[in-house]
Amino acid sequence: MQRIRPVIMCGGAGSRLWPRSRAAHPKQFLDLIDERTLLEATAARLAAAGAAMEILSPIVICGAGQDALVEAQLARAGKPAHRIIVEPFGRNTGAVAAVASLVSHTDDPDALVLLLPADHHIADDAGFWRGVEAGLVAASDGALVTLGIEPTGPETGYGYIRRGDAIGTGVYRVDQFKEKPDSETARGYLATGLYSWNAGIFLFRADAMLNAFKSHAPGILAACDRAVRDAASVKTRLHLSPAAFESCPSEPVDIAIMEKAERVAVVAPVRAGWNDVGSWTAIADLKKAGIAADSKNPNVQTIDCDNCLIESEGPFVAAIGLKDIIIVATPDGILVTHRDHTQDVKKIVDHLKASRRTDLL
Amino acid sequence: MQRIRPVIMCGGAGSRLWPRSRAAHPKQFLDLIDERTLLEATAARLAAAGAAMEILSPIVICGAGQDALVEAQLARAGKPAHRIIVEPFGRNTGAVAAVASLVSHTDDPDALVLLLPADHHIADDAGFWRGVEAGLVAASDGALVTLGIEPTGPETGYGYIRRGDAIGTGVYRVDQFKEKPDSETARGYLATGLYSWNAGIFLFRADAMLNAFKSHAPGILAACDRAVRDAASVKTRLHLSPAAFESCPSEPVDIAIMEKAERVAVVAPVRAGWNDVGSWTAIADLKKAGIAADSKNPNVQTIDCDNCLIESEGPFVAAIGLKDIIIVATPDGILVTHRDHTQDVKKIVDHLKASRRTDLL
Repeated sequence: MQRIRPVIMCGGAGSRLWPRSRAAHPKQFLDLIDERTLLEATAARLAAAGAAMEILSPIVICGAGQDALVEAQLARAGKPAHRIIVEPFGRNTGAVAAVASLVSHTDDPDALVLLLPADHHIADDAGFWRGVEAGLVAASDGALVTLGIEPTGPETGYGYIRRGDAIGTGVYRVDQFKEKPDSETARGYLATGLYSWNAGIFLFRADAMLNAFKSHAPGILAACDRAVRDAASVKTRLHLSPAAFESCPSEPVDIAIMEKAERVAVVAPVRAGWNDVGSWTAIADLKKAGIAADSKNPNVQTIDCDNCLIESEGPFVAAIGLKDIIIVATPDGILVTHRDHTQDVKKIVDHLKASRRTDLL
Repeated sequence: MQRIRPVIMCGGAGSRLWPRSRAAHPKQFLDLIDERTLLEATAARLAAAGAAMEILSPIVICGAGQDALVEAQLARAGKPAHRIIVEPFGRNTGAVAAVASLVSHTDDPDALVLLLPADHHIADDAGFWRGVEAGLVAASDGALVTLGIEPTGPETGYGYIRRGDAIGTGVYRVDQFKEKPDSETARGYLATGLYSWNAGIFLFRADAMLNAFKSHAPGILAACDRAVRDAASVKTRLHLSPAAFESCPSEPVDIAIMEKAERVAVVAPVRAGWNDVGSWTAIADLKKAGIAADSKNPNVQTIDCDNCLIESEGPFVAAIGLKDIIIVATPDGILVTHRDHTQDVKKIVDHLKASRRTDLL
């Protein structure tokens, strides 16, 4: 039975879900969709794999100061970590993939690495695992496999993957990775039937990934290798060496490796109710579709509101006569935005950074 | 020189300016328009009277527990009260007019009483005093005089006064008081040129008002007379007797007296930049017109907002892509409303009362 080492990428520090997402509590640690946090749901999902796979305890790679939070949330999810690797600072997903491959290869060279973002929502765990299972043969055979999510619309916020020839059942050679398209281009992609969304979920042999790094991103590999070698190890924690990690180039794994490697495959279409929870509009849509919890909050009172998302973590919010408005209230920060403008939340966070409002970040 | 005893009606407990207006700090005690509270502005206005009048120290009639606030704000305005009369509970403006007349008559029978709401905004103090001055002769002669505000539009939120024959320069017999009209009716009123807004500002001889009470509202007069007689007097404070005041019928002075009395006059048109500050929309309009202060609040950040009023007393508010929206944030309560729906703020307060959220009232 194929052993799988899940590596959960938990180092994100997104700014698009302010005011709930903060530096100390970014998106993956928040209960945005239901009573579980996104990390807890990601960890709990590991229990739902099919019989063809043995899912090992996960490795979690997180940012400085967040290891205690990771440990607590994994305990709540009933999936204690095999290791928690702490990055002293972020160096993008290229470094994460290199560190994951190095550590996983040392711990268990025959396990496949399943590299997972901690901060996405997947409604259909079984659909997700069917996707992983479909990639097992290709990954075992040395291909770097990515899960290609079936597009449900011409989204402009995601990268796309164009598939080439089939190399197995539901598995294809990757023809091309595409950056976030404009709306017209996205519609064109969907019309061909050849495109999937790139969810940043990868399945691969650690040695295959390490070889790809040797060829295409040796600088990342060298820095990460030293950062792991010189890491401070305390029980399950591995604190990467800041001196070594600092010199690591900061690149997404898609650009550093996937777009360049020779043997890259995509499982498509993966149908798993996937959502990257990339904006408050995404959360509003999940709630509207009844996927996310929309419990009656005694601190929210509405009159004549239509198609609104109104959340509060404490202050009482009264909303009257609103349409298509999103309100997110925390004790010290309140967001009120039209649902078509939620991408600009990032600008608010930029403003807070510029004006050194660390209390709100 | 005519002596005038201003009597400031400070007992209101409006609910239309929640979340800033609260039971312990209703509208008149708030700095809604500029750095002064409405009460402070009302008191300060007394210094701007013309040479034809001697303005005596004001009597303020307020609710239970608010006398200290009144005293502090009058001190800040530089107009200490002659008396602060404390109502144990509200019995509407009929009782206020009766108490005002009784006390003023005892203190100085020859002074005219100028009965003033504490919670209105008047941009043009000189215009206001010209209106008062225009009513002096009629009031001295025994008429109950009301100031008729020149309408600036077909407002449906105010009562109207239709004037009859002239009885002096800019002073007319009142033909009829009209309740708040619908929009079409209001436009009809304006077309005639005979209508003014009823601002609830009255000028009269105390004995003339007391006679009118004897004829038209003897129950109110009797109860107020006992409440004043049995009042507890402590320095400038007069605490009306709860036992006596409880039996007082609760009626607006307009209905109890003004609509029934024989000699009622209106000064019209009074041009004073009057506004009853009756809703957040009114405040938004005052700010838009540059009349109210709109200081840069470091706790408010907007992107692509149009025609919005965004206020915060603490929590940081980020607003994006909004049009015609009013946001008022306090540490524990947040209002977000379309500017055309601010009358429904009252319903929010009713809901809070029904759910016993006294912390928010």
